[in-house]
Amino acid sequence: MLGIPVVLFRDAGGTAHALLDRCPHRNVPLSAGRVCGDEIECAYHGWRFAGDGRCTAIPGLPAPGPERARRALALPAVEQQGLVWTWPSTEAAVGAPLSFPSVGERGFTTVLRILEADANMFSILENTLDVPHTAFLHRGLFRGGGTTSRFEAVLRVLPHGVEAEYLGEKAPSGLLGRLLAHGDGTLRHVDRFLLPCVAQVEYGLGPYRVFISTAHTPVSDTHTRVYAVVTFKLPLPGWLARPFITPIANRVWAQDARVLRLQSSTTRTFGGEQYVHTPLDVMGGAILRMLKEVERGESPTTQPEQRVSFEL
Amino acid sequence: MLGIPVVLFRDAGGTAHALLDRCPHRNVPLSAGRVCGDEIECAYHGWRFAGDGRCTAIPGLPAPGPERARRALALPAVEQQGLVWTWPSTEAAVGAPLSFPSVGERGFTTVLRILEADANMFSILENTLDVPHTAFLHRGLFRGGGTTSRFEAVLRVLPHGVEAEYLGEKAPSGLLGRLLAHGDGTLRHVDRFLLPCVAQVEYGLGPYRVFISTAHTPVSDTHTRVYAVVTFKLPLPGWLARPFITPIANRVWAQDARVLRLQSSTTRTFGGEQYVHTPLDVMGGAILRMLKEVERGESPTTQPEQRVSFEL
Amino acid sequence: MLGIPVVLFRDAGGTAHALLDRCPHRNVPLSAGRVCGDEIECAYHGWRFAGDGRCTAIPGLPAPGPERARRALALPAVEQQGLVWTWPSTEAAVGAPLSFPSVGERGFTTVLRILEADANMFSILENTLDVPHTAFLHRGLFRGGGTTSRFEAVLRVLPHGVEAEYLGEKAPSGLLGRLLAHGDGTLRHVDRFLLPCVAQVEYGLGPYRVFISTAHTPVSDTHTRVYAVVTFKLPLPGWLARPFITPIANRVWAQDARVLRLQSSTTRTFGGEQYVHTPLDVMGGAILRMLKEVERGESPTTQPEQRVSFEL
Repeated sequence: MLGIPVVLFRDAGGTAHALLDRCPHRNVPLSAGRVCGDEIECAYHGWRFAGDGRCTAIPGLPAPGPERARRALALPAVEQQGLVWTWPSTEAAVGAPLSFPSVGERGFTTVLRILEADANMFSILENTLDVPHTAFLHRGLFRGGGTTSRFEAVLRVLPHGVEAEYLGEKAPSGLLGRLLAHGDGTLRHVDRFLLPCVAQVEYGLGPYRVFISTAHTPVSDTHTRVYAVVTFKLPLPGWLARPFITPIANRVWAQDARVLRLQSSTTRTFGGEQYVHTPLDVMGGAILRMLKEVERGESPTTQPEQRVSFEL
Repeated sequence: MLGIPVVLFRDAGGTAHALLDRCPHRNVPLSAGRVCGDEIECAYHGWRFAGDGRCTAIPGLPAPGPERARRALALPAVEQQGLVWTWPSTEAAVGAPLSFPSVGERGFTTVLRILEADANMFSILENTLDVPHTAFLHRGLFRGGGTTSRFEAVLRVLPHGVEAEYLGEKAPSGLLGRLLAHGDGTLRHVDRFLLPCVAQVEYGLGPYRVFISTAHTPVSDTHTRVYAVVTFKLPLPGWLARPFITPIANRVWAQDARVLRLQSSTTRTFGGEQYVHTPLDVMGGAILRMLKEVERGESPTTQPEQRVSFEL
Repeated sequence: MLGIPVVLFRDAGGTAHALLDRCPHRNVPLSAGRVCGDEIECAYHGWRFAGDGRCTAIPGLPAPGPERARRALALPAVEQQGLVWTWPSTEAAVGAPLSFPSVGERGFTTVLRILEADANMFSILENTLDVPHTAFLHRGLFRGGGTTSRFEAVLRVLPHGVEAEYLGEKAPSGLLGRLLAHGDGTLRHVDRFLLPCVAQVEYGLGPYRVFISTAHTPVSDTHTRVYAVVTFKLPLPGWLARPFITPIANRVWAQDARVLRLQSSTTRTFGGEQYVHTPLDVMGGAILRMLKEVERGESPTTQPEQRVSFEL
């Protein structure tokens, strides 16, 4: 996380723990060792650490005696809906992690994918919540299947995020769009950013729903790990929908990953981003402002609702 | 150029254009996109740019409206003798590029080679215009075929460069030298550096001529692209001379490229060049001084003619 | 050495010389050239240098004339017991290098191994002279073969180093230990660090001896070359002992090299070492203090004898 190595392990009871991945003794990464019962053991001298970071054994030392300096740094770790969440903070009380909608509900299918991107977290969040590129970069796959639709976005700043609700949008005309919604009808479509690292896309048409939630680990300034949780209820059952959706989703991701990698390497060459915004970049601008406010320790500024027209 | 990515493209009429290789919108390199008619199109959101940098289309935006901030940065581009020249400057009036001698003239053959070198531009310019190493590093191929010749160089500072004329030089005794000039006779030989990035070597013997011009793109401090234009009129016709000259020229270049790469990596290890000059390094010293003067924004200092003796 | 390239060559008489690996003329590494009689010749222009750094030939220059600026920088070089020692200093009088014990003595066999480690010199010195990790990381190979032994270390600061003598240690219970000493008996065991770069381990049991001396070249902050000289007299003859010892020693080294590489990359990630010491880290702490004192130009501080208990 943020350039800091973290080791995750489960104790004998299955509870997940997170420690700084550095033995306090000689700085060998604990992840190179092994798990012994409730503890993780360093590969070099065999020091052992409990999930809370306490050093429980030092081979060869006749009388160890408890010493604070010998602790490994423990980070909070919470497991929920199949993901282990951790925070770059030693305060235990960081609150519960976000719960993804409709996971495990009757009629819904959930798919988890872990993706790696050579880009910083912001550029991936913006990409995920950016509507215009879908009609161009993913033409025919998602939007951009021939017909053009004119619709509006309403941008709302939330207490811990920002969302855009799209009004009057037709069902997307690309392959994925038609899978969600054959026939006519107006789409319910909300895009959301939730501090500090989650993007959510929600589509609805009649009784059908698709929720795409992505939680991001900013591994470094140029690399991000993306945990994508996709939960859907579609006209066809999940086991039948998956083999259609998977290759298309892979293709969409490959297109995004390429562009993000090029964007990242170009901004590095030039020593930083230098972006021009248009009204279409409705979410990107709001996310960037909010991330910078939080980074400075400020509360996100509230904003009046904003409306933008699209023609895609 | 100089660490700054540039994209080149031709419009529908075939005219070459150069733009900074960074879309002003989200900084994806324009070279990852494609050419559409007279314009280049970004791969991410499909923004289009004309050869002068104007943004001509933004998909999805109902009413674009011309905005200066949306321009891509255009660089001057001029095509001549099969090369496109560009400058790291937004001033349109940078003058016409250098014209290479005798290209397209009756009886002359021209060969273009593009070479990559892991070295900075100065060290390649010096290598190209350095006589002593040819008798040692390229022994037997160019000079140094057994006999030693004593001759003089006259160094003259030009308004935008510097040249060395070699007086009393015998035809080089190596393979390439003998191809140019079997039999005796005194060679006409001028080496020239022309600001900011061109080296020229000119040999003449009776009616025969060889012009080697190299234009350099300083890609970065440690990498240079070399455009070598070789124009010659020899005792044997061009189609017959080429298969003899090509493998020898390749070998000469491979020897130079290896030494330049080693020189570059050693100067990097030591944190910079630390050179000792002798009177034989007649061109190198003059080029280095001139490049530094121009870099500081000064005009090149004029110098009286200088004479140096060689024994090679 | 310490990031500075050095070229070593032998003159016609076989004497070894060390020069800074950079031609003073155009900074090409002299190691890319060749040896001609008593001299080393640069690959670029053929300049030649004697073992003391004097420039003895410049091809093409009619009247060279001796010039100090044309000298290559010579470093002291002394050959002894099959190793060439050099110092990052131009003072000729650096003293004789260390002599390894019992090399060439009747009944002793000597093996030389050159090892490369992705780690700094200190962490390798500490690893070599650290007893506790042998029972854990090398369990079964060296120590840690099942039984536990309680013994004491006496730490003594020497005029140019530091040593730990182990008292009451049983013969190590691992494979290598049993090869040295089947049956019972108390081991003579001394570990020693000698400034600036040597570690020595000495085992004795009755008439048998094993001396392991390692001299270290700190190639850079993250890479060290280790010259290991192992001299032994064992119950079985050298030609018979070697095929048993070699694969075990290789395995021990592979285990250490892995841990050292991980340690080095973790300390780099975190921007430096952050170690916790226990009484067991008796040698490491003393070596680190001594290296830092010498680095600051101070004489090593003398210390009273220190005693530490081990249980391995």
